[in-house]
Amino acid sequence: MSQPVPPTDQRSTSGAAPAPGPIGIDDVRAAAGRLDGVAHRTPVLRSRNLDARAGARIHLKAEHLQRIGAFKFRGAYNAIASLPADERARGIVAFSSGNHAQAIACAAGLLDAPATIVMPSDAPQVKLAATLGYGAEVVSYDRYTEDRRSIGERIAGERGATIIPPYDHPAVIAGQGTAALELLEEVAELDVLVVPVGGGGLIAGCAIAARAINPRLRVIGVEPQGRRAARDALERGEVVQVEVPRTALDGQQTPEVGHLPLAVMQREIEEVVGVDDLAVLATVRSLAIRMKQVVEPSGASALAAVLDGGIELGGGDIGVIISGGNIAPGALADLLGNDLELRW
Amino acid sequence: MSQPVPPTDQRSTSGAAPAPGPIGIDDVRAAAGRLDGVAHRTPVLRSRNLDARAGARIHLKAEHLQRIGAFKFRGAYNAIASLPADERARGIVAFSSGNHAQAIACAAGLLDAPATIVMPSDAPQVKLAATLGYGAEVVSYDRYTEDRRSIGERIAGERGATIIPPYDHPAVIAGQGTAALELLEEVAELDVLVVPVGGGGLIAGCAIAARAINPRLRVIGVEPQGRRAARDALERGEVVQVEVPRTALDGQQTPEVGHLPLAVMQREIEEVVGVDDLAVLATVRSLAIRMKQVVEPSGASALAAVLDGGIELGGGDIGVIISGGNIAPGALADLLGNDLELRW
Repeated sequence: MSQPVPPTDQRSTSGAAPAPGPIGIDDVRAAAGRLDGVAHRTPVLRSRNLDARAGARIHLKAEHLQRIGAFKFRGAYNAIASLPADERARGIVAFSSGNHAQAIACAAGLLDAPATIVMPSDAPQVKLAATLGYGAEVVSYDRYTEDRRSIGERIAGERGATIIPPYDHPAVIAGQGTAALELLEEVAELDVLVVPVGGGGLIAGCAIAARAINPRLRVIGVEPQGRRAARDALERGEVVQVEVPRTALDGQQTPEVGHLPLAVMQREIEEVVGVDDLAVLATVRSLAIRMKQVVEPSGASALAAVLDGGIELGGGDIGVIISGGNIAPGALADLLGNDLELRW
Repeated sequence: MSQPVPPTDQRSTSGAAPAPGPIGIDDVRAAAGRLDGVAHRTPVLRSRNLDARAGARIHLKAEHLQRIGAFKFRGAYNAIASLPADERARGIVAFSSGNHAQAIACAAGLLDAPATIVMPSDAPQVKLAATLGYGAEVVSYDRYTEDRRSIGERIAGERGATIIPPYDHPAVIAGQGTAALELLEEVAELDVLVVPVGGGGLIAGCAIAARAINPRLRVIGVEPQGRRAARDALERGEVVQVEVPRTALDGQQTPEVGHLPLAVMQREIEEVVGVDDLAVLATVRSLAIRMKQVVEPSGASALAAVLDGGIELGGGDIGVIISGGNIAPGALADLLGNDLELRW
């Protein structure tokens, strides 16, 4: 099902080209400087009952409590703040209906950069309202007849604006890495770091930061069981496009991991494991009931994998990124009302 | 509707008698020493959107993230830890079907004290299971034909065990005060502190701690609109028993405030305001959707009152105690699924 994809620089993408050199801990530290006082330094949550269940000390980095409700704010803000003033003034373009759109809209607003978000005309009203609320312009398209990338590129070309992609971009990756930087500053002795994988920006940035600080730390990625984009790419050594079956993990439906993230993952991570939708939904329910935290399915995927037993924990200190909390109220209501078993 | 009640020491209560002198900041600091490394030092949560809506800086002390999911752990642990070893060994008795029962069961387990909890035979299975899970013995009674107080007193008498009441007890009050002590340590410049009032143990302890540190700080209590136990007691200068109409604020259905709490409240607090059930339920829903926090109705009552506009905030730094998070999953599901407006 999966087919190779040419590297980013051979595709017709406008916007900032990936940096020539590899992204390093210095880039993550520079991002942390830009985010200081702007992003939330999110808490690290613990639970004695969870530790007892896992047989290890679990440290949950609570990115669902980040601005816009997800880690995406870090990368979006760092990318826009890294632009020269004249480029920033010409504006930012993003195409997304998810957390990246909110992140770009919010970050651009804070940095006085005009933002244009290309969203499907049938996007949920609540997401549309939030994006408009941050002061962004929204351009709608018909997702069945139009291509969001070409609309975005046309707008960027007309205005001289910069496209910020959601993961295949060095400043986005460095920004996401600040989540792990903060976690390691708080829990230096971490043995394992478990991170959700969609396009790969979060795990790439986190692996760079965490392994620069502690080279013996093992980084493990988690993707939906039915989406093998990360596992296939690592096996074949190149970016592949996969078909994504229906999954509740809507933040990880991306059909590929990016070129820059893959290069980092090949170097820095131990493996990617798949996680079952039902195990994730039971974890979302358990987080609400046991730890009083509202987390979206993708946000709970790494913790679900830890509890599933497929990862060798070794009884030590396990960092887990809880990546986002933007679940629709009705979807959470359905989960709370059903009888999925508590995981701890 | 309300009638005076004789002071505690004239009623037939066994168990520890209230201390002769007033409770002071030193008692709260001693409690903090006992709780160090045992209770969670709960985070103080902020939200830019909430601040903008309230026109003030709101600091939410997150006691729904405390052990057993509510502030009650602080007072229960402090009371049991304060007992001489021989008294502790003879055991603890509590009668409650709510957070106090869980708190006593958990704290007694940690301190190796046998605990007996007198619970109605129709208590929810989940509460029964949790209490048993902490290692406590549960004695059931028929709430329509039997009196839990006399059952508790008989057991305490037979075993030489100590009854720990939920609020009318100096060590319980001092323990609850550690929540405000921690908040003031983090936000020294607090102007107002808003606290839910049930039996009054939490607000009494918090007022003692907060006003000893900052005497200009104003403390305001919040009780259900239809339950005037605190307002009537303050007006009349004595404990009164009130009829409690049906309310969603099940943690504040107590028909009285205690004698010790009332004495502190008369000296230290500015006023108690009533809050409407629907305003509280909308606040619970907003906390889940906007701040990703699961809070029980009573736990959100103080924040609901702040947003209702009935408290003079003065635009400063407002501390709000979020007192608990133990809402039934089905009740939260109902709230998420309905269309109560977002409060911010």
